[in-house]
Amino acid sequence: MADRVLVTLDAEVRDAEAPLLYADDIGALRGDGIFETVLLRGGSACALELHLARLARSAAALELPAPDLDAWRFAVEVAADAWGGDREGVLRMICTRGRDGAHPSGPAGKGDLAGPQPDTTGYVLVTPVPERVAAARADGISVITLARGLSDQVADTAPWLLLGAKTLSYATNMAALRFAARMGADDAIFTSTEHRVLEGPRSSVVIQRGKTLITPPARSGVLPGITQRALFAEAERAGWDCRYESFFTADLITADSIWLLSSVTLAARVNRLDGLRYSLPESAAEIPALVDRGIAREWSVTDW
Amino acid sequence: MADRVLVTLDAEVRDAEAPLLYADDIGALRGDGIFETVLLRGGSACALELHLARLARSAAALELPAPDLDAWRFAVEVAADAWGGDREGVLRMICTRGRDGAHPSGPAGKGDLAGPQPDTTGYVLVTPVPERVAAARADGISVITLARGLSDQVADTAPWLLLGAKTLSYATNMAALRFAARMGADDAIFTSTEHRVLEGPRSSVVIQRGKTLITPPARSGVLPGITQRALFAEAERAGWDCRYESFFTADLITADSIWLLSSVTLAARVNRLDGLRYSLPESAAEIPALVDRGIAREWSVTDW
Repeated sequence: MADRVLVTLDAEVRDAEAPLLYADDIGALRGDGIFETVLLRGGSACALELHLARLARSAAALELPAPDLDAWRFAVEVAADAWGGDREGVLRMICTRGRDGAHPSGPAGKGDLAGPQPDTTGYVLVTPVPERVAAARADGISVITLARGLSDQVADTAPWLLLGAKTLSYATNMAALRFAARMGADDAIFTSTEHRVLEGPRSSVVIQRGKTLITPPARSGVLPGITQRALFAEAERAGWDCRYESFFTADLITADSIWLLSSVTLAARVNRLDGLRYSLPESAAEIPALVDRGIAREWSVTDW
Repeated sequence: MADRVLVTLDAEVRDAEAPLLYADDIGALRGDGIFETVLLRGGSACALELHLARLARSAAALELPAPDLDAWRFAVEVAADAWGGDREGVLRMICTRGRDGAHPSGPAGKGDLAGPQPDTTGYVLVTPVPERVAAARADGISVITLARGLSDQVADTAPWLLLGAKTLSYATNMAALRFAARMGADDAIFTSTEHRVLEGPRSSVVIQRGKTLITPPARSGVLPGITQRALFAEAERAGWDCRYESFFTADLITADSIWLLSSVTLAARVNRLDGLRYSLPESAAEIPALVDRGIAREWSVTDW
C-alpha cells in the first residue's frame, strides 16, 4: 500500500517519489499560497464542500485566481479512490502562486514575486494519518497558551496580515508547536494581547459549559474552522446552544471542557492546560460523536 | 543566456526547467524553512559571509540543523560561475525542513510536520534582477506605512513568532506589498503598535539626519539587515555617526532622508511617504556609493 498519493489539478496521478515543484515556485520561495487539509475516511473526503469554499475564500484573501472548484473536486476524487477506503488518510489541497516570472512577456513577468502570476500550481497529496492522532482522539492532549502578540481587533483593519486565510506560511505555527513540545505539551492555544482566546496553530478552540458550546468569532482573526462548524451544526440539532463569542483565557479555566477541533484529529479534548488537569465531564461525552456525524453530513459549498 | 541557474547543495548544476522539489517538502507545505537573497555583481556574491552567518542564525531560530556553510559557499560559487559576471543576478539560498516523514523509522518519521526532519532540502537559485530595481535605485520609491499589529517588545518573550529569522513564510510580506501597490505605492514600512518604525517587507529602514544614520535595533523584532550593516560599516569609516535606536513614525516625517536597504535593490531612497514628498538632500547623496563599497568589502562570517 503506497504511503503517498499525488494527483495534480489536471487529475493526473503522479509518482510521489518523483519531484513535482520547480525550484522557483513562489509557494516554495515565499510560502505564498493556500491549502486545505481534509480527512479521508471510508474513501470519502469529509466535508469536502466546506473545504473547497474555504479554499476559495483564502484565494480571495491572497488575491489568487478563484480556484476551479470542479477541477479540485475531481482531483480529490481521483486521489481518494487511489488511497482506498480501508484506512483514514490526510488529504492536502495545495495551491501556490505558481512559478516566478512564469510569463516573462506579461505584466507580471518581471521577476517580481509580489506581482500577479497567472499560472498557479495545484496538487492533491494524501499521506497517512500521523501517529499522534489516535492518542489525541482517545486520551486528549496537553496544551499551553501562547501569546500571538496581536490584538483581536486587527483582522478587519489590516488585511495584509491575512488573518483568517489558510496560507502556506505556517512557519510560526510550526514553531509554536515545537515550543509547546519543549514545554512538555502536545499543542498550543494562541491568545490575543487582550488575553482573549484565539485558536490553536492547526485547530479551532471550543469551550463547553453544560449544553453550551462557544468558539471565538472569525472577526477576531481566527481561521473559521470546518470541524468546529460541523460540530455546531450537529450539536444544534441535538439541542445544544452554540455561540460565536469572544472569551478570555480565564474562561478556559472555568469551562467544563475545552476542545481543539481540526480536520484530521477531529475532536481533541484538552486534558491539561498550562499544568491544570481537566477530566471529561459526562455532559461533554457526546461531543466526539457529534463531530463524527457532522463531518459525514452532505455539505454544500453554499453552507460556508 | 539562461535566465535561471539552479545548483543543489551537493554543488550539482541542475536543469531549472525540471522539477526539483517533492510534493511533500515541508518548505512547500508549510513555508517551513529559511532563505537568503544575495546580489551577484561582477560574478561575485556580495557580502556572502554575512548572508551565511544570517542563514545559520535563522536555522537556529527554526531549530533546523546548523547549515553546512562550506557546502553553501561552494554551491554559491558554482552558481555564480554559471551565471557569469556580465550582469547582476539575484541569488537565493533556500533551505527547507525537508520531506515530510523522510525517515519513517526514525523518531521524526511520524508524518508529523512539527517534528524534526533530519534531511533538509537545500538549493541555490539565480534569476535576473527584477525590472523594478533599476528605477528604485535611480529614482527612489514611494512608500506607505502599514501596521504590523505587533508590539516592538515581543521578540524576546515570544520566540515562536520567529521575529528576526528569515523564514520562507513570507505570505504576509507579499500581501503587504500587494496592498501597497493597490494604494499606488512601491513598497511599505511596517510599524509597531507603539507607532515605532520596524522594517519593510523585504528591507531595512534607515533614516538620515545630517551626518547621522539610525536604524531600529534587532531587539524590536526586525530582521538584522546585511545591506544596512554594510552601509553602517562604510559610513562609520567616512565619519558618520551610525546608531541602532528605536524611533517613531513621526521621526520619518522629520528625517532628512529615508532609505529602504535590501540585498538586491541596495539603497532605495523614499521619495514619497504616505503622500508626503521627499527630495534628496545633498547631505545624503553619498549613501548609495557607501552601500556599493560596503557590500563589496571582504566580510568574514565572524563580522556578523
